[in-house]
Amino acid sequence: MDELAEAVVAGDRRALARAITLVESGAPGLRELSADLFPHTGRAHTVGLTGAPGAGKSSLTAALIQEARSHDLGVAVLAIDPTSPFTGGALLGDRLRMQMHATDPGVFIRSMATRGHLGGLALAAPEAIRVLDASGRDVIVVETVGVGQVEVEVATAADTTIVVVTPGWGDSIQVAKAGIMEIADVFVVNKSDMEGADRAVRDLRTMLEMGPERDWVPPVVATSTLQSSGVSELWEAATAHREYLEASGELIVRRSARLLSEVEDIVAQTLRERAAASLEATPELIEDLTQRRLDPYAAADLTLRSIPG
Amino acid sequence: MDELAEAVVAGDRRALARAITLVESGAPGLRELSADLFPHTGRAHTVGLTGAPGAGKSSLTAALIQEARSHDLGVAVLAIDPTSPFTGGALLGDRLRMQMHATDPGVFIRSMATRGHLGGLALAAPEAIRVLDASGRDVIVVETVGVGQVEVEVATAADTTIVVVTPGWGDSIQVAKAGIMEIADVFVVNKSDMEGADRAVRDLRTMLEMGPERDWVPPVVATSTLQSSGVSELWEAATAHREYLEASGELIVRRSARLLSEVEDIVAQTLRERAAASLEATPELIEDLTQRRLDPYAAADLTLRSIPG
Repeated sequence: MDELAEAVVAGDRRALARAITLVESGAPGLRELSADLFPHTGRAHTVGLTGAPGAGKSSLTAALIQEARSHDLGVAVLAIDPTSPFTGGALLGDRLRMQMHATDPGVFIRSMATRGHLGGLALAAPEAIRVLDASGRDVIVVETVGVGQVEVEVATAADTTIVVVTPGWGDSIQVAKAGIMEIADVFVVNKSDMEGADRAVRDLRTMLEMGPERDWVPPVVATSTLQSSGVSELWEAATAHREYLEASGELIVRRSARLLSEVEDIVAQTLRERAAASLEATPELIEDLTQRRLDPYAAADLTLRSIPG
Repeated sequence: MDELAEAVVAGDRRALARAITLVESGAPGLRELSADLFPHTGRAHTVGLTGAPGAGKSSLTAALIQEARSHDLGVAVLAIDPTSPFTGGALLGDRLRMQMHATDPGVFIRSMATRGHLGGLALAAPEAIRVLDASGRDVIVVETVGVGQVEVEVATAADTTIVVVTPGWGDSIQVAKAGIMEIADVFVVNKSDMEGADRAVRDLRTMLEMGPERDWVPPVVATSTLQSSGVSELWEAATAHREYLEASGELIVRRSARLLSEVEDIVAQTLRERAAASLEATPELIEDLTQRRLDPYAAADLTLRSIPG
């Protein structure tokens, strides 16, 4: 095994930071590292935290860290920056908010952008999570910005997905429109000190009751990081969900499906790169497309024929 | 040319509806239809409308329809449902809000889910837009829910992207965090009758000024659909952007890049299907993955070798 991989497995913080940078940048060596670490993964409880911007996810993450530490568990946080050339320092405030844990060796916090990684967030996130997992952390919290398709995919690529809403964020129809009802394992109404919190909790419970029957009905927890209330209930809800996953066998099923989908992503990404290279080599095809002499499907066919298998 | 394609090009509403259903479901015949329509596309001004849930995009779309009609332009609206098994009827309210235009033959409104289409939203949306374009509509408004990566991609696959925020939605840092500064051609602060609207407009303008220099600086327009104010300013801003695109040559560049990216998507999707089929045929590989005897990259390699080129 490589030196870096060994240091990661031993729990070395600097090695951990270097390994995540490797994932982020997609630099050479990532593949080997990934292979070395893989047998050491699968132990941590991964928790995805998602919700609209401004819902207070970062403060909630900080509160969850504290809760995990009070149970003597090692924690890692992966805060995922949206890939955006404008917003380089935008998550700085969040990082600062979590700095109260910066001196605790049991807590590892890392923001990750995905500018270098060719597969983007969808491939980089599970790799980074495995690095943290291999380092022996008990709980890994993944925080993403936004509730878009890819962001939701990342948050749901966790054992337990927590969806955070606020009383002021929108009515239940808005929650349904955003398509987040079916991805939540645990619902949080954060900023429960604000007006309308009780109603938001009631509305969500009603919506969940009206939904299709399922073995695990997502609990709805009201939290206020301002008043430090509800966080231990949230912790218990997340832990109960993990126990449900293990007892029901759902954990293995979910993780296996995730790995399979990741392999598909890697294969597709590799082939896509070959397709792009092939397209680049045929300027006349691009011209035909632009002039609308060749439709996209026909152009795809020509490209497919030219890709080495 | 096929009968359906002919009817679409002739502007027949029922044919239009049938064609979009074909796109939505990814049914056989879609490819041929797409090829038949392609030479008839490229005339319409496509406008993408995006923003957080609850920002009032649907009301704004309705107001834009009215504005376009007052200029005697034919309009089509494509409202894109998030792919979600829970929320089948969730956009019904929006559709109702737009029904005041239901009897106007110059207006065609259609919601689209993308459950059947294998390429998902990323492939279905541009196809649907081309169908509407080929039917001779002057303006096509594409409304998406959310500001996630895929949703943003769809909204930005338009000539002009309008980003809608509200005074209460969050501060400018939140806007930056959501990564939407760089995708907007026009900014709208909707619900300008609410407190904080002036400040939101000022904040956005300041942020845009602080950003990198560019030929087109996105105007910030304050609208209130409640008070019917600002909509004609928004219309003018969108029209000015279209004129800028044509005059600068940017229109051809953008559209060409979009077509190329679509070809890449089709190729990648085709190859991904082959990969999934190949994986399905190898249960022992899946077992090795689940047991962590084989890492995702190694599994991807084995799969790549087994895909017919």
